[in-house]
Amino acid sequence: MKTVHRASYDVLRRHGLTTVFGNPGSNELPFLKDFPDDFRYILGLHEGAVVGMADGFALASGQPAFVNLHAAAGTGNGMGALTNAWYSHSPLVISAGQQVRSMIGVEAMLANVDAAQLPKPLVKWSAEPACAQDVPRALSQAIHLASLAPKGPVYLSIPYDDWDQPAAAGAEHLVSRRVTGLGMPSPAQLAELAGRLSRASHPVLVLGPDVDGARANPLAVELAERLSMPVWVAPSASRCPFPTRHPCFRGVLPAAIGGISRLLAGHDLILVVGAPVFRYHQFVPGDYLPAGAELIQLTVDPGEAARAPVGDALVGDIFLTLEALSGMLESCSRPLPEALPRPVPRGEEPGPLHPETVFDVLDELAPEDAIFVKESTSTVSAFWQRVEMRHPGSYFFPAAGGLGFGLPAAVGVQLAQPQRRVIGVIGDGSANYGITALWTAAHYRLPVVFIILKNGTYGALRWFAGVLDVPDAPGLDVPGLDFCQLGRGYGVRSVHAADARSLREELARALAGDEPVLIEVPTLTIEP
Amino acid sequence: MKTVHRASYDVLRRHGLTTVFGNPGSNELPFLKDFPDDFRYILGLHEGAVVGMADGFALASGQPAFVNLHAAAGTGNGMGALTNAWYSHSPLVISAGQQVRSMIGVEAMLANVDAAQLPKPLVKWSAEPACAQDVPRALSQAIHLASLAPKGPVYLSIPYDDWDQPAAAGAEHLVSRRVTGLGMPSPAQLAELAGRLSRASHPVLVLGPDVDGARANPLAVELAERLSMPVWVAPSASRCPFPTRHPCFRGVLPAAIGGISRLLAGHDLILVVGAPVFRYHQFVPGDYLPAGAELIQLTVDPGEAARAPVGDALVGDIFLTLEALSGMLESCSRPLPEALPRPVPRGEEPGPLHPETVFDVLDELAPEDAIFVKESTSTVSAFWQRVEMRHPGSYFFPAAGGLGFGLPAAVGVQLAQPQRRVIGVIGDGSANYGITALWTAAHYRLPVVFIILKNGTYGALRWFAGVLDVPDAPGLDVPGLDFCQLGRGYGVRSVHAADARSLREELARALAGDEPVLIEVPTLTIEP
Repeated sequence: MKTVHRASYDVLRRHGLTTVFGNPGSNELPFLKDFPDDFRYILGLHEGAVVGMADGFALASGQPAFVNLHAAAGTGNGMGALTNAWYSHSPLVISAGQQVRSMIGVEAMLANVDAAQLPKPLVKWSAEPACAQDVPRALSQAIHLASLAPKGPVYLSIPYDDWDQPAAAGAEHLVSRRVTGLGMPSPAQLAELAGRLSRASHPVLVLGPDVDGARANPLAVELAERLSMPVWVAPSASRCPFPTRHPCFRGVLPAAIGGISRLLAGHDLILVVGAPVFRYHQFVPGDYLPAGAELIQLTVDPGEAARAPVGDALVGDIFLTLEALSGMLESCSRPLPEALPRPVPRGEEPGPLHPETVFDVLDELAPEDAIFVKESTSTVSAFWQRVEMRHPGSYFFPAAGGLGFGLPAAVGVQLAQPQRRVIGVIGDGSANYGITALWTAAHYRLPVVFIILKNGTYGALRWFAGVLDVPDAPGLDVPGLDFCQLGRGYGVRSVHAADARSLREELARALAGDEPVLIEVPTLTIEP
Repeated sequence: MKTVHRASYDVLRRHGLTTVFGNPGSNELPFLKDFPDDFRYILGLHEGAVVGMADGFALASGQPAFVNLHAAAGTGNGMGALTNAWYSHSPLVISAGQQVRSMIGVEAMLANVDAAQLPKPLVKWSAEPACAQDVPRALSQAIHLASLAPKGPVYLSIPYDDWDQPAAAGAEHLVSRRVTGLGMPSPAQLAELAGRLSRASHPVLVLGPDVDGARANPLAVELAERLSMPVWVAPSASRCPFPTRHPCFRGVLPAAIGGISRLLAGHDLILVVGAPVFRYHQFVPGDYLPAGAELIQLTVDPGEAARAPVGDALVGDIFLTLEALSGMLESCSRPLPEALPRPVPRGEEPGPLHPETVFDVLDELAPEDAIFVKESTSTVSAFWQRVEMRHPGSYFFPAAGGLGFGLPAAVGVQLAQPQRRVIGVIGDGSANYGITALWTAAHYRLPVVFIILKNGTYGALRWFAGVLDVPDAPGLDVPGLDFCQLGRGYGVRSVHAADARSLREELARALAGDEPVLIEVPTLTIEP
């Protein structure tokens, strides 16, 4: 007799979901029973770290990641991390163990009452199958839905007495189903887009995280070169969609209405690819667009397209559309933009390091295909200016600004990309939201280098307090943290680097090794 | 001109909500501007810890606690902790900063889209006021709703451009409103209840956490003595409603249908006060009640009453009802039950300490009014047997079994009860879900003693794996943790106590001091 358990593992295996990110409780034990040899379980000590690791894994692999959480409390602990997964279109298939069916209504301990409601609105879909026999099909549905554009998290609550029930007849059909989204523009749509681009006299390209998500970065380079377009990264960048030392590269747009229209002034056509229009943050009223400009948005997400306050939008596949477009455009006669000047290496002053100095060292020593997972919100501009990023999948930042992403995502990215080195650049404020991920790095010996920038304050918040004229808010400082002790407490080799020379030495040593290392660096507070 | 900001602080002040538990972000800064001198801000480094601290504060003070979280991500991070607050009827008034109104729809960074949906179903009520002028009234509504029976968490999302808007005319009426729940039984209801109790030949009393929540423990003692009733604590005990060395005290009921009816066999009337019927955990089918028994439940919670599978229920005020009842009952002629035998002090063997040894030391050294915050799920029975608890508000355990309560709640309880010593008894698995609370203890110099029982495994889960015949699940062990380093990393004096003598010395030293101390104790794994 095939059980629900066996049929469900068949579905997971068929889709390559053989890594289970989890933190188990009693409701989950029957699912974990007879755990197959071709699966691996990655334990996190807190569900925020579990979901963050899975998020990093999904983003860096381009594949859905499977998560197993404990009932309502475990789901709740992971929900902050879901804000990022939602906005990064991260295909997380989250399962949670439920009490036995007969004890949900009476609200026994660990019953997840109204389970399908709990993760909303941070999931595309959530459900608790109405009977055991529907579990494998619902799991298949969850995986397909998470993977279809726009990708995103889904949630399934599964009573623990379901697993050893007999599977429904016909469950074997699930493993042979293929569900594929289509998203090519029609010839007419394509011709119109190409025509508008060709007719523009000063077009500009604004690229968002879903360009990197589609691995369409080389196509974006081709498009930019063909039309000699300057390239900006869309505001609140969570990924790097374009090589940052390419002549066309101009930097990251500010996250303010007014600032964007100022920087894009003079362009008659703005093509936004793989981003909302736009992810603003600080409220600076102004014109959405510079005078005389039109905007066209190419996005995978109907929600992004529909809610934009300005411009036309095409909703579909980014890779296929850029590929088709490049075959239709002739090279223009405009000269390529001039490359941005390389920033002058920052000299070292006594005292805490300037973050620019840290980034100069990183740029010098990091492997050319290094992956940076960044969660230091006050040093974003300095990082983009000083650390070269060349390849797809080189940069991950919390897409919703939800702290607790950095440390766990670095671990998940390293699991997904064992052949590349992952360097986490994490603020001392940020690190505490996902600190337990250090244990997972140590336990599974994942060679992430964690650089903790320690300035004793919530730096970005201090800057925002200036913007909003709030000089006196409580709770902005985080003194008295010793990350070397914290790292060692979780089993990670941890060192303090107080100047550029020792940072250079410790980073080189860490990169030469094959274990996780934490480097705590005292830094100055700068503005994002 | 009175602003929304000023009117809202007036409402908070009027209700005594002058302690703000929070972790700030940009959306919250305008609320925190001009933070009044008579308020205090308690910073947590992770929102799970923030909500856990507020939960402990509310439980130990009996008053609502105010929380300020950061947008959707901060709310999400705190939602695991809400599972406990929901089941402990903890009156948490949770506010979250929202983007400016004009940038919510476009989903700017840190917009909390569909904010009122997010905390459901773990709150009694959630809302985002439809305009700035309604914020003070909505805040008042939130406080009243959280405080009315059954108490529980509520949620308010407040756009940050609301605070400096002019308050509505008439906002001053809010601070003079009093909203009070009534819950006395009618004379007829009371007479019926007293009659059923008087006529029973073998009544038994089962007490739940809301007896302690109502500070009705002395009334429960009086009732038990009047009718010479044995007293059990309802299963999955999250508080201690009865002095544990009283002759009537029998212990904590098991969390299984079968086990309860077996232990209560022979009784013809079961009076359950302040608890659901029942909070089962492991699924052991059987009769809900022993043969011939009737059950009457007195509860503050209509939900608890309605969903119970057996027995009659009265929904109302526990304190007032018990008080009225005691005036109507004559002392019975049955002899008082014989006190349970005191457990024999456990001798010490070499190697890791037996948790019973740890608890013997605690029982010996803890002040007689100590408050225990416990989150070591595998040692529950041993603790109740060996550590005497005398007074109301002496014991707090996660009400939903949601881990991450212990360390933060201990901090919140200590803030609420500065004149009593708080001792946290936390498992090494549990501690990681709320580890950052150590920083808050150090930063505000709160003299909590944190005892970490370190056995390197999720002990209760190992036991449950035996119950469910799952010998092979992955992810059950947590080796390689060094809590002395973790404690020091967060600024808490931390010591290792490997035997009973050093535990005794370190505990005595900690109790003689006035600062937080962490004591890591290697222990054996036992069964809950």
